[in-house]
Amino acid sequence: MLVYLNGKFLQMEEASISPFDRGFQFSDGVYEVIRYYPKKFFEMEAHIDRLKYSLNEMHISFPPLDNIEPVLHKLISVNNLTDELSIAYLQITRGHQYPRRHSFNENISPTFFISVEKFPPKTDDMINGVRAGLEEDIRWLRCDIKSTSMIPSILSSHRAKENGLSEIIFHRNGIITEGTHTNVCFIKEDLLITPPLSNLLLAGVTRKVILSLCNKLGIISVERAISVSELNDFDEIFILGTTVEVTPVIEIDGICVGDGKPGPICRLLQKEFRKLYSL
Amino acid sequence: MLVYLNGKFLQMEEASISPFDRGFQFSDGVYEVIRYYPKKFFEMEAHIDRLKYSLNEMHISFPPLDNIEPVLHKLISVNNLTDELSIAYLQITRGHQYPRRHSFNENISPTFFISVEKFPPKTDDMINGVRAGLEEDIRWLRCDIKSTSMIPSILSSHRAKENGLSEIIFHRNGIITEGTHTNVCFIKEDLLITPPLSNLLLAGVTRKVILSLCNKLGIISVERAISVSELNDFDEIFILGTTVEVTPVIEIDGICVGDGKPGPICRLLQKEFRKLYSL
Repeated sequence: MLVYLNGKFLQMEEASISPFDRGFQFSDGVYEVIRYYPKKFFEMEAHIDRLKYSLNEMHISFPPLDNIEPVLHKLISVNNLTDELSIAYLQITRGHQYPRRHSFNENISPTFFISVEKFPPKTDDMINGVRAGLEEDIRWLRCDIKSTSMIPSILSSHRAKENGLSEIIFHRNGIITEGTHTNVCFIKEDLLITPPLSNLLLAGVTRKVILSLCNKLGIISVERAISVSELNDFDEIFILGTTVEVTPVIEIDGICVGDGKPGPICRLLQKEFRKLYSL
Repeated sequence: MLVYLNGKFLQMEEASISPFDRGFQFSDGVYEVIRYYPKKFFEMEAHIDRLKYSLNEMHISFPPLDNIEPVLHKLISVNNLTDELSIAYLQITRGHQYPRRHSFNENISPTFFISVEKFPPKTDDMINGVRAGLEEDIRWLRCDIKSTSMIPSILSSHRAKENGLSEIIFHRNGIITEGTHTNVCFIKEDLLITPPLSNLLLAGVTRKVILSLCNKLGIISVERAISVSELNDFDEIFILGTTVEVTPVIEIDGICVGDGKPGPICRLLQKEFRKLYSL
């Protein structure tokens, strides 16, 4: 597997980060995961815009990312993934700084790492639906930044796996925010409801695409606060994300969603979503 | 500068971390900073106990750390720091995992990194006192774990530096928690007041030592919630930490503390603290 690190294409084993990289010592960096549908990247511009937003909010100076698409395509190509459903992982950290200090030097050179891997969608999950847990959201209050300070999500993801769940949905003081790596949508009487964007959740690219699809398909969508106490009332629930696309949730926190089967609006959105990318 | 990485002593430039280290990609790791006062480490056992606590809370399996002190002494020695006031930085991550997934494999091998550096105390700050800012605490809700998910503290430290401040003190909903890298103490009519330990702040080793010193010196201490609205009322404020030891705060959030000079209880504790370590 070849990876990209600071302008070079290297064998994975040869790619090396300094232990004084601020990404390693302070999680002082941001990332993106972009889906590759042969032969194009999914919503490249939206992902790069969000990466720029994260960098800006973190005060990480970075050269324009306008030329990054050819690099991604080359990485797909040299790894023989041109015809494979894949993902690209991009991480930018503030760079290497010695000695270790909390405050950062303005003039250090960022670290830019990209890897790709074959990543077919989890078709079974998308067809049959998944079970999700519910946990208090203990993350920091800037979840709109896609930073690598990810411990709470990591620990929740691990608990999910241990309990045979596919995702954990967070709530803060009883109000739903998002999942560990997904946004959440709810259906009630043909209305699509999703939490409004704020500092408490990521502005998901798939979320944006789905809201736009709703508009096109005549599905009315509303962005409003959703309380945990409402969870019993929904006809459908589904999660959205780069890797899960549109995946139905058939059980949340032990509660059966609707009739326990993926619902018709989720099915429709799955189908229309895939049409967008000629799949 | 020689560093220690996974059992080897290496030149700093030769020490290399994989970009697939979970410490780099997810800040999936913990750390400690331990002071070296020639020729002993400050409260080694307390630091190692806290490191074990952090590892345990993060579900990172790690071999016993009982033999780490000779490694630290060797690192001090090979870097010619035996007679220098120094610090050791220890970081343990969950280790290298490919492909990148949020949930972790139980059987991966942790990464263990140690560096040392000459770090004389900031005597001027300790004598003259420092200015501190005040910010909303937007960190995650497990600040009792010394994890490398440190973005909020990093950004606050940077703002402090930009504004000529030495520290930022956090409050959550108007209640003081701690600083970006220190605990905080307040003096009111000879009583020492500090926030009680909880999930919202780190159980500082220097904090523990100072509370024990208070006990020995007959200074009455109390652990209770401190409101931002009280900040005007204190005779003295000081910060505690491995690097700052006991440092007076003479201004907080633009408000002069007491008469704007380091107070007598801070002075006494500074003196007695240094006596403990024969300085």
